[in-house]
Amino acid sequence: MSPTLSTAARAVRGSAIRDLLALTARPDVISLAGGLPAADLLPRERIAAAAADALADPAAGQYGETAGHAGLREVLAAHEAERCGRTVRPADVLVTTGSQQALDLVARAVLDPGVPVVVEDPAYVGALQVLQAAGAQLHPVPLDGDGMRVDVLAERLRAGLRPRLVHTVSSFHNPGGVTLSPARRAALAGLAERYGFLVVEDDPYGLLAFDGRPPVPVAAHSDRVVRLGSASKVLAPALRVGWLHGPRELLAAVELLKQCTDLCTSSLTQAVTARLLADTTWFDAHLARVRTAGAARAAAFGAAVAEHLPDAACSTPSGGMFCWLDLPGVDTAALLPRALEHGVGYVPGSAFAVGAPLPSALRCCFASPPEGEVVEAVRRLAAAAPARAPRAPRATT
Amino acid sequence: MSPTLSTAARAVRGSAIRDLLALTARPDVISLAGGLPAADLLPRERIAAAAADALADPAAGQYGETAGHAGLREVLAAHEAERCGRTVRPADVLVTTGSQQALDLVARAVLDPGVPVVVEDPAYVGALQVLQAAGAQLHPVPLDGDGMRVDVLAERLRAGLRPRLVHTVSSFHNPGGVTLSPARRAALAGLAERYGFLVVEDDPYGLLAFDGRPPVPVAAHSDRVVRLGSASKVLAPALRVGWLHGPRELLAAVELLKQCTDLCTSSLTQAVTARLLADTTWFDAHLARVRTAGAARAAAFGAAVAEHLPDAACSTPSGGMFCWLDLPGVDTAALLPRALEHGVGYVPGSAFAVGAPLPSALRCCFASPPEGEVVEAVRRLAAAAPARAPRAPRATT
Repeated sequence: MSPTLSTAARAVRGSAIRDLLALTARPDVISLAGGLPAADLLPRERIAAAAADALADPAAGQYGETAGHAGLREVLAAHEAERCGRTVRPADVLVTTGSQQALDLVARAVLDPGVPVVVEDPAYVGALQVLQAAGAQLHPVPLDGDGMRVDVLAERLRAGLRPRLVHTVSSFHNPGGVTLSPARRAALAGLAERYGFLVVEDDPYGLLAFDGRPPVPVAAHSDRVVRLGSASKVLAPALRVGWLHGPRELLAAVELLKQCTDLCTSSLTQAVTARLLADTTWFDAHLARVRTAGAARAAAFGAAVAEHLPDAACSTPSGGMFCWLDLPGVDTAALLPRALEHGVGYVPGSAFAVGAPLPSALRCCFASPPEGEVVEAVRRLAAAAPARAPRAPRATT
Repeated sequence: MSPTLSTAARAVRGSAIRDLLALTARPDVISLAGGLPAADLLPRERIAAAAADALADPAAGQYGETAGHAGLREVLAAHEAERCGRTVRPADVLVTTGSQQALDLVARAVLDPGVPVVVEDPAYVGALQVLQAAGAQLHPVPLDGDGMRVDVLAERLRAGLRPRLVHTVSSFHNPGGVTLSPARRAALAGLAERYGFLVVEDDPYGLLAFDGRPPVPVAAHSDRVVRLGSASKVLAPALRVGWLHGPRELLAAVELLKQCTDLCTSSLTQAVTARLLADTTWFDAHLARVRTAGAARAAAFGAAVAEHLPDAACSTPSGGMFCWLDLPGVDTAALLPRALEHGVGYVPGSAFAVGAPLPSALRCCFASPPEGEVVEAVRRLAAAAPARAPRAPRATT
């Protein structure tokens, strides 16, 4: 039988990244494709110990409250208060099944088909999928080295655009590798106040600032911001623990929709996450290890690109997991099968494109493989890339 | 700020049951309200051991494939094949974050606002919420002691009703406590073939047949059926592992929507579930313990009702977790605060009503508390209930 599908089901495109995961899982391939945290730094023994400890309590085996595990909400509220520089109560935080669910539920709570929404270009693929399913009308705003071009957004707003929400990965952008500057954060918050839209500040990478100083959130400047956070990049994706912090009326609507969606997030993985985040001595040390490794891998990646792909333009990340490359004259989607033959995987820029197709761009996740493999991956990429036309010799004097 | 909410957010009513969970969690209250499996039978040590074992592999800490953990899909396919009596491949099964997510994703995949859908009356609250969010047009069909009145459905179809899907909790109904008879299962499947609708066979309780013989699924009679299963009632709700098995085209659409929704279900809790279900010696023994306890609690509940609430009509469950009571002349919603004062919680029938309001009905979960507490709960309920008019004395000869 072929069931009749809904408008939403017909609107969503598959994620090229999720589809690539199967290909790049081949043992001979070094994958820079997925947004996977370093496997060697996942605190697996600590998680097993926390699970055993949590399971001494029957509550860790049962259903829990839809809004989340009380202890976890307390830790998260304290964390958000520190980030935003103001009081945040546990009731201002809701736990979700990864921050992807937070994004989906916020979209379901505030969007109807045809409602205008602003996204960055290039954009996080998971956000594009959520917004496609919601039937939103997408308005892309470009990125530069300082993150979203808030001046371009301001211009569109002056020209009459009235989005219901603006989505931004404010820190260590996926896929762009850039970070919204402090001035632009304040400006974006000001526009939200003035034009009455909601900013969705998608921030899974903020704690991965290489200098250990997470950027001050957009939410510090306005309460028209809902912040999405995640344990995936700082602890482990398998916990499927994310959260949102934002206006209470919005949280109430999201909580109701979450009842329909999965009743509650795993009491077990929430109890584990609460234990790991509350043990600040352990967590700070763990985070420092992840940040240090990330910084070393990013530096190795940048140096290898400079050596082996001298024509490439490459973002200079100060945290997070991603670099955005541009290989002038190369069609990166066409190159991918050849790159996989050479034993390296990445995601073509076109997967993230909203407006222009970005055919020569690609996203590389420098954080997944160990340093040596990061360098080898770039070497393989350079070997797969078409030979460049020789440069015109410089005139010497 | 008050965000503008979507049509879906405004359509969903809160679950009276979820709201009740807070009240009934008071230590002085014996709760028959939640659909919680027996806390004393949750295999917590076994879960902790399986988690530790699973976490020896880095994959248990990472993101996984959206469709689910390969090993788990294999076990589930074998399980579904046995239940349905035909070949089921791992590709025919998709893992979800509890079966609630399976239901939500199926609804999102096939429904648009205004599409007619058939539900049982009374109905599972979580299904009503999902269908409200989807904007479906609900057509209730009553239950009797043999489950959904398929003859009534047939009449409506003859009269022109053309639902896109029909939702049924076929075995050990929530909240009705009844089971769809074999003849009606075949008849429902025949109607699906004839009128081209999809049956959603929501089956979290099938393995809890007191006699150890789960009913033959509706899906055994037709491939126009999507089956929803869950680890919540046979292992532990905190795993948040559910699954669906059905037509491939539907599964493909559901998988795409699941990408948007939470990327994937926890690799850790999936790996745990796979280990527990694959250890058939252990799982069969565990299931036997749960079934035996359930049967004893149901019997104790029934006997206590006969003794203390002789006027009540009470379903006679042959499995699962729920009894459906009717207290003639009592407004069970109005009675609830008084019942809580007497130290017992339940869910008023009105929470499950689709058509008529069912004011004198209530749902009791006999499976959560130990046997002694089940009996004490009924005693408290009888004490809280208004004194009945004395019966007219029987004429004796």
